[in-house]
Amino acid sequence: MAETFHVVPTAAHEKLVSTAYQQRGFTADEATQAARLATAATRHGIRTHNAIKALHLDDLFGSKVGGCTPGAEIRRLPSRFDACEVWDAQGKLGQAVAWEAIEACIRLADIHGSGTVSVDNAFHYLWGGGYVMEAARRGYIAYTNCTASLAEVVPFKGAYPTLGTNPHSWGFPTTEAVGYPVVIDWATSVIAMGRVQQLAREGKPLPPDAAVDAEGKPTTDPNRATSLMPFGAHKGYGLALINEIVGALIGGSLPTIRSRHSGGPGEKHGCGFFFQVIHPEAVSGGAFACGRTQAENVKAVLADILGHGNEGCMLPGQLEAEAAARSDAAGGLLFSTAEVEALNEIAVAASVTPFDISSLPTV
Amino acid sequence: MAETFHVVPTAAHEKLVSTAYQQRGFTADEATQAARLATAATRHGIRTHNAIKALHLDDLFGSKVGGCTPGAEIRRLPSRFDACEVWDAQGKLGQAVAWEAIEACIRLADIHGSGTVSVDNAFHYLWGGGYVMEAARRGYIAYTNCTASLAEVVPFKGAYPTLGTNPHSWGFPTTEAVGYPVVIDWATSVIAMGRVQQLAREGKPLPPDAAVDAEGKPTTDPNRATSLMPFGAHKGYGLALINEIVGALIGGSLPTIRSRHSGGPGEKHGCGFFFQVIHPEAVSGGAFACGRTQAENVKAVLADILGHGNEGCMLPGQLEAEAAARSDAAGGLLFSTAEVEALNEIAVAASVTPFDISSLPTV
Repeated sequence: MAETFHVVPTAAHEKLVSTAYQQRGFTADEATQAARLATAATRHGIRTHNAIKALHLDDLFGSKVGGCTPGAEIRRLPSRFDACEVWDAQGKLGQAVAWEAIEACIRLADIHGSGTVSVDNAFHYLWGGGYVMEAARRGYIAYTNCTASLAEVVPFKGAYPTLGTNPHSWGFPTTEAVGYPVVIDWATSVIAMGRVQQLAREGKPLPPDAAVDAEGKPTTDPNRATSLMPFGAHKGYGLALINEIVGALIGGSLPTIRSRHSGGPGEKHGCGFFFQVIHPEAVSGGAFACGRTQAENVKAVLADILGHGNEGCMLPGQLEAEAAARSDAAGGLLFSTAEVEALNEIAVAASVTPFDISSLPTV
Repeated sequence: MAETFHVVPTAAHEKLVSTAYQQRGFTADEATQAARLATAATRHGIRTHNAIKALHLDDLFGSKVGGCTPGAEIRRLPSRFDACEVWDAQGKLGQAVAWEAIEACIRLADIHGSGTVSVDNAFHYLWGGGYVMEAARRGYIAYTNCTASLAEVVPFKGAYPTLGTNPHSWGFPTTEAVGYPVVIDWATSVIAMGRVQQLAREGKPLPPDAAVDAEGKPTTDPNRATSLMPFGAHKGYGLALINEIVGALIGGSLPTIRSRHSGGPGEKHGCGFFFQVIHPEAVSGGAFACGRTQAENVKAVLADILGHGNEGCMLPGQLEAEAAARSDAAGGLLFSTAEVEALNEIAVAASVTPFDISSLPTV
């Protein structure tokens, strides 16, 4: 890391985030869940989905404009199925709903082998990888997807953005095998809109097939780019469609009016979440080669994949695990100077004492 | 379709395939399931996974070399979980196991909301899209993945092939919404090895970032290409890893010795299958915008995605549905001349009367 990072004490970070959320009317519990996710993101090096992004999203789409309702209660809908639940989040804070959904999925998976929670009327949960990582850390297979707030992505061979960046996140219980959970977690666009804006500021071109202009033509000029393209042509498009179809089956409405004040009466603007956890014993045949345990077998398979000259390859989740190790070694959360300044703006707005940047240790 | 296709009567095709499998020692039921999948593939235009490919795979890896055991019985393993089953296929024909697994998943989903079947000691099921399409046609959400027979794909930033082409297949109950099930079904390599060989024969270059040479360097020369690359860089790599990790959790061993006669004593060489079906009511919040039904809501969402100037885009599964419509209109299965000749070789080997190509109707 050539960049200098300031070490912010975790407790102070959580107090700041929690206070900021409570000042916006969220309950103490909601604020705690928001702080927990913000800490997890920063600790794992996820700078795109930290506390600053979370509160910015709340400004744009959330409690300030009615897209998210502080103190909302989750309605658990009646169901005739015992391994699946459907919740009406009633606009409750996404992080609070997501942490609770993962716990519910784990409880169901402990009984039925798999547990599924689908959520209607949801608000942005930020970092899907954080929730599946938690389940994977505790020994489970976990998956989540959600519909993104805005339609920024054009369908394959299309011209107009009608899909979200629609992320998918998978977590696997590989800590015994490789020291950390394998977490596969990405958006279905080639790059994020924030990255387009960053490249525009830096005067750098976009990668090919990442964005289109206002006419729907592919462009590598970040100043002309208005919408994003799915990664991997029709394959990423298919993955983006999955989130829209699952969202539509749950209860979400048209992607082009999501999180927007448009559309006719009777329309809906919330996101949908889908969570699933599977108990690893519920997929185990128990007959592993050479008398291995299940974890030893996963370790052997991953060693085979990263052997034979592939030792320089990484596993998804490795960078996040290394970031967490650096953070833990530093004794706090690592923020850039610009990030600490942004946190201090949040602090001032929330009447919390800002951090004295010069007094924070650096790494 | 510029190419001329011969119309082969479905019953004659199924009799040929079934007889060929029974001549190899498979039971009448196994042969019927193999014929059913072969018919479904050809009817839907899936020329890479038809009867010819199926029997070729059996020659290379199956009953002729001990990789697949005709007449094997599926062992249903004891489990404390009621929504998930694990089967030891004992090398039974993949198509027979897969059709049965989808039925079992549907039965479990009808009771629990979701149903999962994991299969150890499996043999190639050919076209995953066919199984999820069947479940989707009957109104369910379905997913399958499997570990591929051979390690042909290098990890992202790697040099040596240690991953299979590891497909993922999702099916969605969208017939009421768009007239056919949306089926998202592809391998995690950019292209298949068969396509590399085809481009070599045609003297055409490979697309960029699709293959590497013997030194692990990217190449667009099909004659130098020895291994494949995952699509979408680290994203397709992550998707390929999912199949290996799920396979390893089920009971599969090292990818580099799968379907090969290498590795030490106590090793395993079979594939793993993972199937899951979800009942659409088990994810439904029931509160669709503008008083829509669930199917009407899916229809409205898909219309929004394919509107706004995106009318030329296709949905995954559309080409397959159009192929089936052409096949049904022609009154049989559509095969190229080369394909009928290959079927006739199979016929001769199985002591079945070959097709008289000149007497078959053409389209």
